[in-house]
This record gives sequence, C-alpha cells and structure tokens, in this order.
Amino acid sequence: MYKEFLVSPGPTCVPPDTLLLMANPLYHHRTERFDELFYQTSEKLKKLFKTKEDVYILTSSGTGAMEASFVNLINKNDKIITINAGKFGERWTDFAKRYGAIADEIEVEWGKSVDISIIQEKLKNDKDIKAVFVQHSETSTGALHDIKSIASITKNTDTLLIVDAITSLGVHPLEMDEWGIDCVVSGSQKALMLPPGLGLISLSKKAYEASKNVTTAKFYFDLESARKNLAKKTTTFTPATTLIIGLNDILDKLFNEGLENVYARHENIALATRSGCDALGMKLFAENPSNGVTSALAPKGIEGKKIKSTMEKKYKISIAGSQDVPKADIIRIGHIGYYDKSDIVVTLSALEFALKDLGHEFEFGVSLIEAQKVLYKGTK
Amino acid sequence: MYKEFLVSPGPTCVPPDTLLLMANPLYHHRTERFDELFYQTSEKLKKLFKTKEDVYILTSSGTGAMEASFVNLINKNDKIITINAGKFGERWTDFAKRYGAIADEIEVEWGKSVDISIIQEKLKNDKDIKAVFVQHSETSTGALHDIKSIASITKNTDTLLIVDAITSLGVHPLEMDEWGIDCVVSGSQKALMLPPGLGLISLSKKAYEASKNVTTAKFYFDLESARKNLAKKTTTFTPATTLIIGLNDILDKLFNEGLENVYARHENIALATRSGCDALGMKLFAENPSNGVTSALAPKGIEGKKIKSTMEKKYKISIAGSQDVPKADIIRIGHIGYYDKSDIVVTLSALEFALKDLGHEFEFGVSLIEAQKVLYKGTK
Repeated sequence: MYKEFLVSPGPTCVPPDTLLLMANPLYHHRTERFDELFYQTSEKLKKLFKTKEDVYILTSSGTGAMEASFVNLINKNDKIITINAGKFGERWTDFAKRYGAIADEIEVEWGKSVDISIIQEKLKNDKDIKAVFVQHSETSTGALHDIKSIASITKNTDTLLIVDAITSLGVHPLEMDEWGIDCVVSGSQKALMLPPGLGLISLSKKAYEASKNVTTAKFYFDLESARKNLAKKTTTFTPATTLIIGLNDILDKLFNEGLENVYARHENIALATRSGCDALGMKLFAENPSNGVTSALAPKGIEGKKIKSTMEKKYKISIAGSQDVPKADIIRIGHIGYYDKSDIVVTLSALEFALKDLGHEFEFGVSLIEAQKVLYKGTK
Repeated sequence: MYKEFLVSPGPTCVPPDTLLLMANPLYHHRTERFDELFYQTSEKLKKLFKTKEDVYILTSSGTGAMEASFVNLINKNDKIITINAGKFGERWTDFAKRYGAIADEIEVEWGKSVDISIIQEKLKNDKDIKAVFVQHSETSTGALHDIKSIASITKNTDTLLIVDAITSLGVHPLEMDEWGIDCVVSGSQKALMLPPGLGLISLSKKAYEASKNVTTAKFYFDLESARKNLAKKTTTFTPATTLIIGLNDILDKLFNEGLENVYARHENIALATRSGCDALGMKLFAENPSNGVTSALAPKGIEGKKIKSTMEKKYKISIAGSQDVPKADIIRIGHIGYYDKSDIVVTLSALEFALKDLGHEFEFGVSLIEAQKVLYKGTK
C-alpha cells in the first residue's frame, strides 16, 4: 500500500469533500439554480480579486485566460512590454509574436525578479507603450515580482498592466483595484484547489475602455460576450459546471478561513520549506521567493531530476522538476492551496529519504527540525 | 425527498462510477502515468471518430473545438459555405464574421435538414469555396443532416468538410475516414457522458495539409502545437486532467457495450420517445430527427416553456426548452449517452403529469404504452 501525495505548483491537491461535491449528479446550466450559483461564484471571486469589476470564468486552462487578456486588449502593431523572467514570462512574448504586437521584452535572469526602474525608464521614453505584461509569481523559477510597485508606475498613465496571478492569487495579497492593476488572470488548479479547467479574468475600467478599440479577431475568448452574459447571470458557452460548483465551495472555504489567514498560512509553510531545504544544503533559487512554490538548487553532485524521480517513484511524493531553467539544476516544491504543516513535514521527510538514496551526506531529520521550528511559530 | 433527473441534450447524465473515479486525489499531468493515460485516451478516441488521424483533446467547451477548426483551417477572405439550420449552424456564420471569412450561408428552415443539391450546385459553380461547415445533429432543432452524402460531394475535391458532431458522436454512426470528412469536432458533455469542459477535434490529411497555409492568428487553439505534443504523449497546456481520466473510462464503457449496440440503443430510445410524444398529440419538429434529442411541438393551446418549467419545478425532470426557434413552440428531450429504457418511461410519465396539470386532454399512460412497445422490441 502506497500513500501518494502531490506537492507540485499545480495541479495541486483538492479537498476531498470538494471532489465529492463535484461528483454529484449533474444538473442543467440553463436553469435558475445554476444561474444563481454562477452569479454568486462570480461575486465571491470579486472579493478574492479585490475588485469591484466583473470576474469572468472561462472554460479553459490558465493559458486561455492569458490569451483572453491579449486578444481583448491588444491590436496588431501595438507596442507592449513583456517581462520574461521564466517559462511563463516567455509566453507573453509568444503571444505578441502570434498576434503581431511589437514586444519590447525585458529579459530577467531566471530566478531574479524584474528591476522596476527598467520598466519605469522604458515607459518614460516611449509614451506609446500600450501595456505591460508580467507574472505575479513566476512558477517556473519560484520568483515573485513586485506588482504593487509596477502598478504604481502604470496606474495614472494610459499604459495597461496585465498580471498573470495564476500561482499567486490566494497565496499572496493582490489588490487589483487599490494597486491599480488593469487585468488579472488566474486559473482553477492552484490556490483555488480545483482540478484544471477554469480560467479567470477581470478587467479594470481603464482596460474595459481600451478593449472597445481592439479589433483582434476572437470568438471563444470574447470578453464583451462574457460581460453581457454575466449581467444575465449566465455564460456565452456551456460552462464547466462541475468545476464551477467546486469553485463556489472553495471560495467559501477561503473566506471562512479568512484571506489574511490564508496568506499567513502560505507564508508560514513557505518559510518552513525554505528552512528545510537550507538545512540540507539546498540553496534557494529565487531571490525574492513566492510563497506558492519553493525552488531550490540540487546539492552539488546530485541531479535534480533524480531527486524528483526518486521521490516520485520510490516515495510516491510528486514534486516538480526544472521547467527548462537554464544554467541551474533545481527542484520545485509546490505548497499552493490545500496545504498545511503536516504536508511540509511529509515532503521534507521524503526529500531526505531521496537525498540519502542519492548519496548526499547529512543527518536524518535536519530539515524537519528547522521546518518544525518555523511551523510551530506559525501556530502562535 | 425529490428524485431529480436530467434529460437535456447536454449536459447529460454522467455514470455515477465515472463521477467517483474523477473524485480521486489528483496526480500530476507531467508524469509518465498521465502521459500514458492521455495517449491511450487519444488512441481510443480514434476508434470512436473512425479515423487513423490524431484526435486532439482541448480544455474548452465544444465551441472551443469549433473555433479550433476555424482558426486552423480558414484564412481571412476565404470563401466558405455555412449551413444554418438552427442555433449551432448560425455559429459557423458568426465565426466567419469574426474572422473575416466570406460565408455563403445556406439558410435551412429550422427543423428541416439541408438539401444536398444546393451544396452540390454551389460547389459546382464556384471552385474557390474552401470549406463547408455543417452540424451532424443540430441540437437546437433535433434535425440530422446527411453527412455521408455531403461528404461524397466534397471528398474528391479541394473543398474541406468540417462537421460539428457534438451531439451526434457516439449516437449516430459517423465514419470520418471512410466518408471523407476533413474535420470532426465534438465535446465531453454529450454522448461521452462527462461534465462539460473538453473539446475534441480531428483533422484529415487533406485538412492538415490545408492548415499549413493558414495564417489566422492563434495560440491556445493552435493544433500544430497540439500535434507535436501529442506525439510526445502530452499536451501544450495544462489539461483538464480529471475530465480526461473520466473520458478514458467512458471510452472503455462505450467499447465494452460495442459501438453498434450503442447506436442501436440510442435509436431505440429515440423511437420510443417519438412514439410517446406522438401518442400525446405532440408532433415531431425535426423532419429527419436525430437519435440524440427529440424535439416535439407543444400541444395546441399549451405553452412549451410551461411544460418545461412544470416538469422541472414540480416533477424535477429537467428537459430543454426551445433554443430561440422561430415560429414553432417546442420542447426538447435529450437522450444522449447514459440513458436507457427506464429513463424514457420516467420522462414520459412526468411529461404526462405536466400536460395533465396544464389542461391537455388525454388518458394517463397513452405515451407509456406506445413507448413500451418500442422499447420492448429493442430487447429482442
């Protein structure tokens, strides 16, 4: 008998009662009953996004919501800034290539966060830059960008700020309206603790006004249709009903815990994971690490992918490996959403087993001791 | 205590054991375990599509797969024929408008099927027509188009035939390769008996060759990325893993029953539903009805929407109403996928209760008697 456990930065674990809730017999989506649930869920999402604007629920993965931000806000030949600090930052530039936008890409060394002054300088020198595209938490490196500061630059200008909060929403505070973010995108399989299949997106008033002048061809990801239908408490196309039923339940769970407590829990388990890795001689890869994913360098002489595969195959603990990170050999431990103290203990214990198998020298328990100290502080 | 029951043409009922299978703890999609399941599921889909070509699984509703067919096969200013025989036929023309294709729309009176000779004539008169877009089963009217005959016209020409088989795949025989269909699209929440959230699409060799010359901007629905990743047994973006686990299970169920038996079951319960409606004086709306959905005219003096709402609210049986059908007042009973004899008896019984409430004159049981005769024949 094996106990399997998923500690990746998405998909993440789903609360068992939510899984069972989604296993109930289906009911039709064109009914008052579903309309009401859909509308309530959208209203609850506003509280999570910290916005007064609509939040649209798309049947797609997070990338679909990224595409929606692009095709609704950007015209061909529009000048944009893309922040490439990892695999997901690269994607913004890919969108620009596909849709004929002119991307001025800020290449950030992977593991680092963007230097705000570079954005500031570029925006000062070119008033035609329509938008800045950035991740909040870059999942591939575990680095966090300082969105509040970036937003303070774009806030009172015509430039739009589009933030991929796929692995940060529900992990780190994010104040869409107060900070002045123009578009936030997210997905279901991260801090929303659901299976993959839902993309989420919200536009500020400034972004909505800008979208009216965008002629990029679109149909499935047309947010104007989504807007009109949400006003009627419904969706343009058949929604992923079971996931929305799950989302409604998860949002209740988040608000019952209290968003501040949710953020604090993530911070505590992230700190504990980092302490544990450090005790094993595994340096943090991200300079300004996200509380959703801990990326750590493999110890000298040991391959990261062997740590991952040993943990997965022998100890049934599924972490994530490097996502094409150049010049560094990292592993990534996800702790987004349905994770608590015990999960970190389990994960670090399996990490120790795997490292012992692979010949790393350390005393059993070193990472657990350090992690426990941090976790215990979190209970006070 | 109420027993609720869903008999709509999608979402449809999901087998309870499949719902529970999808409620298992999640595992990561970038693992050999998921790769293998994903690949096996794609292989099984080929048997359902009756094709040797790849079948791509998209995280989207069926409309997403329709969009994928459009953006991968059609350029701006391409001439196409769209068959508009209902709500979903209209959608092809909407795509053309959005993406700047020149649509020659064949307007078919709703409830009727397209007259093949009109397509033949148009294709004879204009050799530049790149593609014909049509539904197999038009869900909004319950009408079936004769795809085999349409394919016989396009088969040995340069014109592509794109078929929306969302409510027909797994209900009616559909031979993609043998008939010469160039693109088949479908979705999860119909005969595949799953919650909504997956779009399916396959391209013939002819369509794949044509796609190489298509420059329409796309990213999320780019089938060339899907093709390259499927060859590596994976997906471009995070897939809706739980739905794919369900899909794999459902495909086993379909093949265990045997596709011919699946088609025969649908035919039998469709015939029974039609007989029952006829016995109640409710005329069939579709001239050439689909075996997936029975659309019937409300009896004189009784509103269709009242039949629907009475069945739904008082008897907890959820059928579908009219989907903007002009000049006719219809109800639609769905029997796609996980439906059998007893379900038709239950539905017709509730239909009788509702009609009695609404003042229609008939003897209790008349529809059940006729339906039973047909259903019993189906057991021989």
